[in-house]
Amino acid sequence: MGGGHAGVPGPWQSASEAVVKVGFERVATEGSFAVHPLELSPGSGRVEAELIAGRIADNGAKGVFFLPSRVSEEACRQDEWFLAGCRRVGLPVVLLDRNLRGVDRPLEYDLVASDHFDGGLRCTEHLLGLGRKNVACVIASPTSTHTDRLAGYLSALQKVSNGYSPRVVRVPEHLDAREAYPWIADELVRIGVDGVICYQDYVAVGVMLELFRRGLNVPRDVAVVGCDDLPIGQSFALGVSSYSYPSEAIARTALRVIANRIAHPNDPLAKVVLAGRLVVRDSTVTG
Amino acid sequence: MGGGHAGVPGPWQSASEAVVKVGFERVATEGSFAVHPLELSPGSGRVEAELIAGRIADNGAKGVFFLPSRVSEEACRQDEWFLAGCRRVGLPVVLLDRNLRGVDRPLEYDLVASDHFDGGLRCTEHLLGLGRKNVACVIASPTSTHTDRLAGYLSALQKVSNGYSPRVVRVPEHLDAREAYPWIADELVRIGVDGVICYQDYVAVGVMLELFRRGLNVPRDVAVVGCDDLPIGQSFALGVSSYSYPSEAIARTALRVIANRIAHPNDPLAKVVLAGRLVVRDSTVTG
Repeated sequence: MGGGHAGVPGPWQSASEAVVKVGFERVATEGSFAVHPLELSPGSGRVEAELIAGRIADNGAKGVFFLPSRVSEEACRQDEWFLAGCRRVGLPVVLLDRNLRGVDRPLEYDLVASDHFDGGLRCTEHLLGLGRKNVACVIASPTSTHTDRLAGYLSALQKVSNGYSPRVVRVPEHLDAREAYPWIADELVRIGVDGVICYQDYVAVGVMLELFRRGLNVPRDVAVVGCDDLPIGQSFALGVSSYSYPSEAIARTALRVIANRIAHPNDPLAKVVLAGRLVVRDSTVTG
Repeated sequence: MGGGHAGVPGPWQSASEAVVKVGFERVATEGSFAVHPLELSPGSGRVEAELIAGRIADNGAKGVFFLPSRVSEEACRQDEWFLAGCRRVGLPVVLLDRNLRGVDRPLEYDLVASDHFDGGLRCTEHLLGLGRKNVACVIASPTSTHTDRLAGYLSALQKVSNGYSPRVVRVPEHLDAREAYPWIADELVRIGVDGVICYQDYVAVGVMLELFRRGLNVPRDVAVVGCDDLPIGQSFALGVSSYSYPSEAIARTALRVIANRIAHPNDPLAKVVLAGRLVVRDSTVTG
């Protein structure tokens, strides 16, 4: 299993990797396979990234589960070099959680993911059901997770009779964490939202802090939901409502998908999505 | 290296373990030794805990670095069983970061720790230097880290001419995270503090959220500092001022201490403390 990244990841980045990994580790204890974690080192060039694939095959691995990079074009290029190497040595690959970075990018590998469309839909319906009228959706990168979540959000809005007015907050990619949270909060205040869907639970906590600093109360003035139900969402008294990540089901499904790919290399590409569930906490409903 | 715990640790617990471990991992890359992480499993009884010590010796280890449990009497008992096992098989032990749990407990092993006294002192002086008049110190368990930090806080207060009035907030141990943060914030509001020293950066973030929920602004109304400079303190735009943990220096020193213990088993017990440094961020000073 691997995930490339261009810089040193903050906890908000490795948190998502951790939730993907934990499913495989749990399923591995059932005994049918072993997990060999692998990370592309940040500086790897094309040759190195391709060589790693050869080494994996030499070590007897039958396939690779791969979490594509989300954050930068550079890291995405590295991902592609590695995947080209896998192709060359005949290693089947199943992508986890998201397609390779790129707007509406067509699938080139099997993909097993959390149902981010359903996540966007359920979280939006939850906020609308609480009587929130101006719900925003925060997205930040051209990957399928963000695109799918946005689509769920738009679909939920479209279904309500009292008007359809999407408020999409697209975070500029050049902002770092220190700049991004104030930027998002300022946008939310400017738009005048009373609910917001964030693309990850760390983002939800960072946005809540900035809303509080601007004198708004969560959830009274703005209800906030995150995604993936990461441990950070249960670290403080103010729990983060979220859409859970079905880690173990994803690992089990990915194993079936790669087994099928090995047996039937020419089957059409599969995108398998598995539903999580809405977890309601204090950031949307006062306990 | 090991650390016992009684339940499944939250990220705020494993974060401290991680910062201890990272120093050893970095120093290990210099090549003079290898890190073999080990965790006592939550349910281990006396026999099992003692057996693990025997297995470590059989595997050729020359010594054990041990991070004592902080959170419960039960986990502390397990620690003691394990350490008794080490003693029986003649494995020298150096404790990391804190002495075994217990009020003013005498040292039974060498100990290498961050200078929590200096941390309490520097953080308090920082808040007093900002003109804060009513600074509280939050502590939560009968371990040397909390006792030492409190002592540093008291010493700093004692030095200022305009009065000496300690505000010690002792968190009841039976409270879980959901209960503890509101309890702490209510206490701080009741006492009327304008500054607070928290025993860890997760605690600082949890307290900040609760202060904001009560309509107070951080740092305007209450300046908040944490301890150990964990990644959480740099995860959001509102960075947490903290006293850094000198991970690598602790690992290097612990290696020297255990080498000396192996060479001179009858030397008097050493407590070595290494200073961190104050890291000033938004939670105390508006950027």
